[in-house]
Amino acid sequence: MNALEIVDVTLRDGIQPIGPWIPTERKIALLHSLAATGLGRMEVGAFVSASAMPQMRDTAAVLEAALAIPALRAQVLVPTARRAAEAVAAGAQELAFVLSVSEAHNQANLRRSVDESVAEYARFVDETPPHVAIRLNLATSFDCPFTGLVSEDAMISLLGRLLPLRPEVEVCLCDTTGRATPDQVDRLIALAIAHYPSADRWAFHGHDTYAMGTANAYAAYNAGVRVIDAASGGLGGCPFAPGATGNVATEDLVWMFERMGVPTGVDLDRLVVVAEEAAALRGSLSGGRVRQAKSAQAQRSAAAAKS
Amino acid sequence: MNALEIVDVTLRDGIQPIGPWIPTERKIALLHSLAATGLGRMEVGAFVSASAMPQMRDTAAVLEAALAIPALRAQVLVPTARRAAEAVAAGAQELAFVLSVSEAHNQANLRRSVDESVAEYARFVDETPPHVAIRLNLATSFDCPFTGLVSEDAMISLLGRLLPLRPEVEVCLCDTTGRATPDQVDRLIALAIAHYPSADRWAFHGHDTYAMGTANAYAAYNAGVRVIDAASGGLGGCPFAPGATGNVATEDLVWMFERMGVPTGVDLDRLVVVAEEAAALRGSLSGGRVRQAKSAQAQRSAAAAKS
Repeated sequence: MNALEIVDVTLRDGIQPIGPWIPTERKIALLHSLAATGLGRMEVGAFVSASAMPQMRDTAAVLEAALAIPALRAQVLVPTARRAAEAVAAGAQELAFVLSVSEAHNQANLRRSVDESVAEYARFVDETPPHVAIRLNLATSFDCPFTGLVSEDAMISLLGRLLPLRPEVEVCLCDTTGRATPDQVDRLIALAIAHYPSADRWAFHGHDTYAMGTANAYAAYNAGVRVIDAASGGLGGCPFAPGATGNVATEDLVWMFERMGVPTGVDLDRLVVVAEEAAALRGSLSGGRVRQAKSAQAQRSAAAAKS
Repeated sequence: MNALEIVDVTLRDGIQPIGPWIPTERKIALLHSLAATGLGRMEVGAFVSASAMPQMRDTAAVLEAALAIPALRAQVLVPTARRAAEAVAAGAQELAFVLSVSEAHNQANLRRSVDESVAEYARFVDETPPHVAIRLNLATSFDCPFTGLVSEDAMISLLGRLLPLRPEVEVCLCDTTGRATPDQVDRLIALAIAHYPSADRWAFHGHDTYAMGTANAYAAYNAGVRVIDAASGGLGGCPFAPGATGNVATEDLVWMFERMGVPTGVDLDRLVVVAEEAAALRGSLSGGRVRQAKSAQAQRSAAAAKS
């Protein structure tokens, strides 16, 4: 099975840092447009403190709309067992639990120690109904905005504490700052897979802040990852990682992998139109290259057709 | 020897498509700024028809300035034996001869057939003094703007006609359109090296039009290439390859390879400042990500220092 499963995170990591409020109906319209491109999986929001992340405060409504779309797998981010219970009560069937490998980032992002997050994860696993799928997001698996390079041992040993609690999870190694390089991605993923061959599935989440978006996705795929996060229009960032603007653009990944002969199930031309809409959201920081290249071509073709 | 040699092509491929005339003194100032970052090798212009590429019509003056910079290796592009003789008369010690693997692109770019270019190359090799270093630029080695994917056999067989004419050349496989993917770069370079193990050195030239800039450079390095072209500020394009805007940014490559532990000899902070100047040239199409990320950080630090 060589296909790539893209998890489009536009509606969570993509819009989370956007200041101006995006009305719920606008989010749901974007959800429908994204689903219509063939994207089969999305992270559609987060159950978190509305004061810390105000843009996520209508996640329950967006999730409800997502659950009504046939064949769409919708996941939501949760940082605690209590938030997970809220998400499940709202109908969530896929939860992404986040904690950081780096102590400093976990403190800044979740206001607790890594040990406390591990205990929280144990509670979360205990209380989550078995029909709910779990993804484990390891933020700062490669690099921390506060303390720099994260040791490989720290990531491996944290996984050693988490995976026994529930083996059937999808593990996502996240490059929170965008400062991972492809050789590091290749090495760490190979190491993690070698240490924990029985883990269900491996995923990768990267940013394009330093132009490593596609290079790291390519390295992750080569190392065995078949699930990669991305945001349309290259939207996104992390409020606790200064400078970390821009998830890798979904359209850049679709372009690269489809051209490599790796199916993604996404209609690129339709996606480029939606990505332009996402990039035009007021207050957004957008990125990626394929969107601009394809849009320029489309304008040229339209002009040629008129002349 | 794991170091990477970057050939900065800002002053040729980078500014060639810029419409508004850049005064010679402005080009020479840019040349000095680039050299001061530690870049040890540059393509500083082209000896070509001034009507086809008006921005290149002062290459002799820029070359003269480049030759006066100690320890800088300056190459110029030439499409014919006659232009090469002009370049040598102007003092050039490194010539990059260009022809295309694709018949259609060679016709559009050089107004002759590939066979005619091979014959021209033979004349060029014959007439070029032995002290002048030769680089052989194979445009459209991967993909042609007019006919799409280029067959691997075409590239291998063209090399088989060219390499025996002078074995001690540097061969550069060029992704003219930016549509090569990293798996293709990896495969073709490995194939070329396996076929012609005695070739002097292998180089790669790529564009970032479809966000493959760093991914392809990473793949090329892994396949054995130790010389890669790039333009500061991500400037550039090819007038005969519609949509092919933007060489991979020099600063993106420096960031990635230095972080991978591969020395480039370039001072990134200084380069980012120069890249901002290059990107600000009137009429330029700029790209890359590291420039923006580092400039944003510098602005934030300056603001913090003031407050």
